[in-house]
Amino acid sequence: MTVEADGREMHALVKRLYPICRSITGDGVRRTLDIVGESVPLEISEVPTGTEVLDWTVPREWNIRDAYIKDASGARVVDFAESNLHVVGYSVPVSATMTLDELREHLHTLPGQPGLIPYRTSYYAETWGFCLRENTLATLGDGPYEVLIDSTLADGHLTYGEYVVPGRVADEVLVSCHVCHPSLANDNLAGIAVATRLARRLAETAPWYTYRFLFTPGTIGAITWLARNRERVEQVKHGLVLACAGDSGVLTYKRSRQGNAEIDRVVRYVLRTSGRDHEIVDFSPYGYDERQFCSPGFNLPVGSLTRTPYAGYPEYHTSADDPDFVSPEAMADTLETCWEVTRVLERNRHYLNLSPYGEPQLGRRGLYGSLGGRSDTRQTQMAMLWVLNLSDGEHSLLDIAERSHLPFAAVADAAQALRGAGLVKEWR
Amino acid sequence: MTVEADGREMHALVKRLYPICRSITGDGVRRTLDIVGESVPLEISEVPTGTEVLDWTVPREWNIRDAYIKDASGARVVDFAESNLHVVGYSVPVSATMTLDELREHLHTLPGQPGLIPYRTSYYAETWGFCLRENTLATLGDGPYEVLIDSTLADGHLTYGEYVVPGRVADEVLVSCHVCHPSLANDNLAGIAVATRLARRLAETAPWYTYRFLFTPGTIGAITWLARNRERVEQVKHGLVLACAGDSGVLTYKRSRQGNAEIDRVVRYVLRTSGRDHEIVDFSPYGYDERQFCSPGFNLPVGSLTRTPYAGYPEYHTSADDPDFVSPEAMADTLETCWEVTRVLERNRHYLNLSPYGEPQLGRRGLYGSLGGRSDTRQTQMAMLWVLNLSDGEHSLLDIAERSHLPFAAVADAAQALRGAGLVKEWR
Amino acid sequence: MTVEADGREMHALVKRLYPICRSITGDGVRRTLDIVGESVPLEISEVPTGTEVLDWTVPREWNIRDAYIKDASGARVVDFAESNLHVVGYSVPVSATMTLDELREHLHTLPGQPGLIPYRTSYYAETWGFCLRENTLATLGDGPYEVLIDSTLADGHLTYGEYVVPGRVADEVLVSCHVCHPSLANDNLAGIAVATRLARRLAETAPWYTYRFLFTPGTIGAITWLARNRERVEQVKHGLVLACAGDSGVLTYKRSRQGNAEIDRVVRYVLRTSGRDHEIVDFSPYGYDERQFCSPGFNLPVGSLTRTPYAGYPEYHTSADDPDFVSPEAMADTLETCWEVTRVLERNRHYLNLSPYGEPQLGRRGLYGSLGGRSDTRQTQMAMLWVLNLSDGEHSLLDIAERSHLPFAAVADAAQALRGAGLVKEWR
Repeated sequence: MTVEADGREMHALVKRLYPICRSITGDGVRRTLDIVGESVPLEISEVPTGTEVLDWTVPREWNIRDAYIKDASGARVVDFAESNLHVVGYSVPVSATMTLDELREHLHTLPGQPGLIPYRTSYYAETWGFCLRENTLATLGDGPYEVLIDSTLADGHLTYGEYVVPGRVADEVLVSCHVCHPSLANDNLAGIAVATRLARRLAETAPWYTYRFLFTPGTIGAITWLARNRERVEQVKHGLVLACAGDSGVLTYKRSRQGNAEIDRVVRYVLRTSGRDHEIVDFSPYGYDERQFCSPGFNLPVGSLTRTPYAGYPEYHTSADDPDFVSPEAMADTLETCWEVTRVLERNRHYLNLSPYGEPQLGRRGLYGSLGGRSDTRQTQMAMLWVLNLSDGEHSLLDIAERSHLPFAAVADAAQALRGAGLVKEWR
Repeated sequence: MTVEADGREMHALVKRLYPICRSITGDGVRRTLDIVGESVPLEISEVPTGTEVLDWTVPREWNIRDAYIKDASGARVVDFAESNLHVVGYSVPVSATMTLDELREHLHTLPGQPGLIPYRTSYYAETWGFCLRENTLATLGDGPYEVLIDSTLADGHLTYGEYVVPGRVADEVLVSCHVCHPSLANDNLAGIAVATRLARRLAETAPWYTYRFLFTPGTIGAITWLARNRERVEQVKHGLVLACAGDSGVLTYKRSRQGNAEIDRVVRYVLRTSGRDHEIVDFSPYGYDERQFCSPGFNLPVGSLTRTPYAGYPEYHTSADDPDFVSPEAMADTLETCWEVTRVLERNRHYLNLSPYGEPQLGRRGLYGSLGGRSDTRQTQMAMLWVLNLSDGEHSLLDIAERSHLPFAAVADAAQALRGAGLVKEWR
Repeated sequence: MTVEADGREMHALVKRLYPICRSITGDGVRRTLDIVGESVPLEISEVPTGTEVLDWTVPREWNIRDAYIKDASGARVVDFAESNLHVVGYSVPVSATMTLDELREHLHTLPGQPGLIPYRTSYYAETWGFCLRENTLATLGDGPYEVLIDSTLADGHLTYGEYVVPGRVADEVLVSCHVCHPSLANDNLAGIAVATRLARRLAETAPWYTYRFLFTPGTIGAITWLARNRERVEQVKHGLVLACAGDSGVLTYKRSRQGNAEIDRVVRYVLRTSGRDHEIVDFSPYGYDERQFCSPGFNLPVGSLTRTPYAGYPEYHTSADDPDFVSPEAMADTLETCWEVTRVLERNRHYLNLSPYGEPQLGRRGLYGSLGGRSDTRQTQMAMLWVLNLSDGEHSLLDIAERSHLPFAAVADAAQALRGAGLVKEWR
């Protein structure tokens, strides 16, 4: 499949998922996981309301069928059917008639972006509300208005999905994306689409690492997974949180809390050597689920890859974050970057030089050009000399690539050739 | 008391102390400490001549009543009464008549600054001499001259003063200034004035640390204190040597020998975040009594705060370093900086997150805004997230403030709120 | 002897050695070592063909008497007597008549440098060949040609030379240069000349370190020495590989594999403080015999000093690298640099302050000016204060010189004076 086809496929998925009203629980998440499951077979977990997860408790499940504000003429001046952003997430049911003045404390607008609907939620404080365009609000008369939110907030479940590509080792690479946002394309349907496509591509290989893809509601979903997988956490050797994967900005990598973990170095290496414009920023305890994976008790080597980062673009958390805001090309570029990251992770090893005293005689092993004196020594031979020189158990192949300024693949190929000749062995 | 009033009070103290002829011993030091003692109750130590202190011996006590060079007409061409700088410090008594040629080896001038009297001493080599303006020397005829130094150099004592503000812990912050210079305002009456005012202000608080203020003669005084307080030295956790505290230059902080001690980091933080122009320079084994506190055997975390540093201005060690050379504003600025340093030192702690697996749910503890989705998260919440994330026992609040780019006070307030909620505990 | 005379003497040696046909074995190496032995008494080692040395085996010995390509008229169109570069090093004997077409696969030229003869070898793959100017090749008709290489490749020996200047300690400084290249002046007759002259100059001193000079064939020679001196390797505390020592480029120091060994710091210090333009580059496992000394099993602190580095100039490994390409001035400059490096190495020590609590009273020991108050403190006194302050066993004199920005010699002199006064002792 070409890069272009990948991009088209991911964009089609974004458009298909866009209308669904997702939240941290409820049928929107289930429908979303069903659709992702058409591409990769997901294992679905349903965790009951009231389950204690770390410092949190799984909340009641929220579902919504309809919501509106009707004026005296019966016209829906705000209509959930037009955009699910119109309702504050987790709004309790309401059915009432009230004046604009009474209604006003339940209305949220963006005065600075009067044409856009904001995205708001209130998961843990029982309330209700509507989000609307400031422009709409300006046209509203004193009322009265008929206000309806046909939602339910009841015992149920929190739902998340997992997909595992088994590797040759139990050590895991975690790829996580949040599935709790309603009609917002970049945040995070693009991340879901890239994760899904990456999972399918990895499934076509026989990878070294086990790759675990998590499709979970933000915060409470990651916390729930962590709470139910305490023993598995130690197997997570590398990880990426994918979000905002489709806008037109440059790629941004936010380091793990550890700051110089292997994933941090690999992503930096890929971004630098690919020639892509990019940003690398330090960890901060805000943003997406890296907040949970990088809490001090877990402190996992999990970074976050986005294009324009969290809250960094004016369309963020508004109705302008629609499918036109993300492009097939940008998602394909994010996907390729993730893929290249796995290409380095998969081969990055420590080798041990078994003939460390002086250089071994490469020539008699057919590993070295026979005619001396020439100064145009080839990359292959330089890569072998570097691998031999630095394979003291302390340097990984990535260390060697960075120090030698040779491509990682050339260094890894050299290590493979030297291993074939019995000159190095895999160390760790 | 306003900053302006602080400045005026300190300048008045400088003017009052200025005429006194101080040296490393003698009544000038005693009178100086008496005057400082009017502001803060000093404990005075008198250490007898001949006492062995580290590698040194307390010298004989020097006092002087009068000194002059009279010409044939009986006019005092050089007169101690006009400026105590005219006599080389620790000059032995002399009463003689001699020609200019005979006198010349005892005369010190500054040919490059012909209108200024230099400051010279000879503590440990018995001699005598006069310091005068090059312009004065140029007018002197062949003589003979009547030369008198009415001084005594006799067994007595070395005098120093201490003032302690008791804290909640025995750990000490040492603030030291030298009191051995005669009529020199910036070096070091301004330092004495700032230390006195800082001591009084701290005494009005109930500080965490115990603050010890030392008013000692330079070098031999610090050495004497160190020799007599070997057991106390280990309690010194932070320290500042104050000197040259009143000139118009920018603040200069000279790091401790350790180079990255907490005091070094705190002063740097205060200077950077206050927006003040400033300089930070590495330790060198020259200057003021940081030389002794930072000798390798003690290696105390003691830095030095000055405005223009040691020997860095043309008025240094000349009669131009008079009360007009220092300003109330500059001394007030130095005082405020010292005060801000204590504000950070007092609150800088390591906390331990008691709920380190995932983020604790701040919302149900009333520590987090209830309406999600908004991107203008407030500084208070960010500070809590940072404190939680980095309170693993390894990071101090100052570390967290520096890494998060949040104000130290906001971080310290967040830690206090989290401690109140039982989410963190004080660690060290 | 003046620097100019040193330069002239080294250049004369280069010219005398230039015509000899050297290789990794054979009489050319022996004649070269004989000539070097006229300046310093070399110990010669002869290692038999077939001896196993680390991963290698000493090859058969190669000698050559004549070689040519004659055209139909009997004229030598390529003649070993004109330049020994004309024959591929280690060519097996051949005597045949063949057309240009048949001959062509045995001919090597430099199409981009048509007037120059390249230098080629084939030590470990049995073959033969001629190197010639592209311009010459262009004039050759179809043939036939009479082709002769009168060489022998037979059991014999590998030859190398050593010269040791005994020191007060057994710890060694290794200076190594390769002696296997035929008529190439910069690579490496200039290196041989500098090493020879440096050895003679050191022999006139009573050095602290033992200095070992190695004159060995490249690669196999260094490997042979290492294989036969496994026990001695641990005594090598510092080392330099000398090559390309006479061209007009700036000095280039290539760090040891360790990267921050004492030799790396000393050479950097000498280059920086001498005011010479220079380059310092990181270690790479290519170039000269630092490849062997810095293989991971040995990992010796051996750097490489050249002017223009390995393969970095168009004359490299061509007939243009002749005695005119190297200058007496450049070789003298390389020699002086090496000498200055030994001046720092010889005196660089760790001292321990025996009076570390406060400053010792330098004045009563005659080490300090008696008249206080002057700000023009002299370098000598500053050097003493720095040595006292940092002589805690952790800092070498070079550390102190770098931190204080004082000349190394001033710091070393200060340490000597303080040691004389019993204030410091040599530590390590």
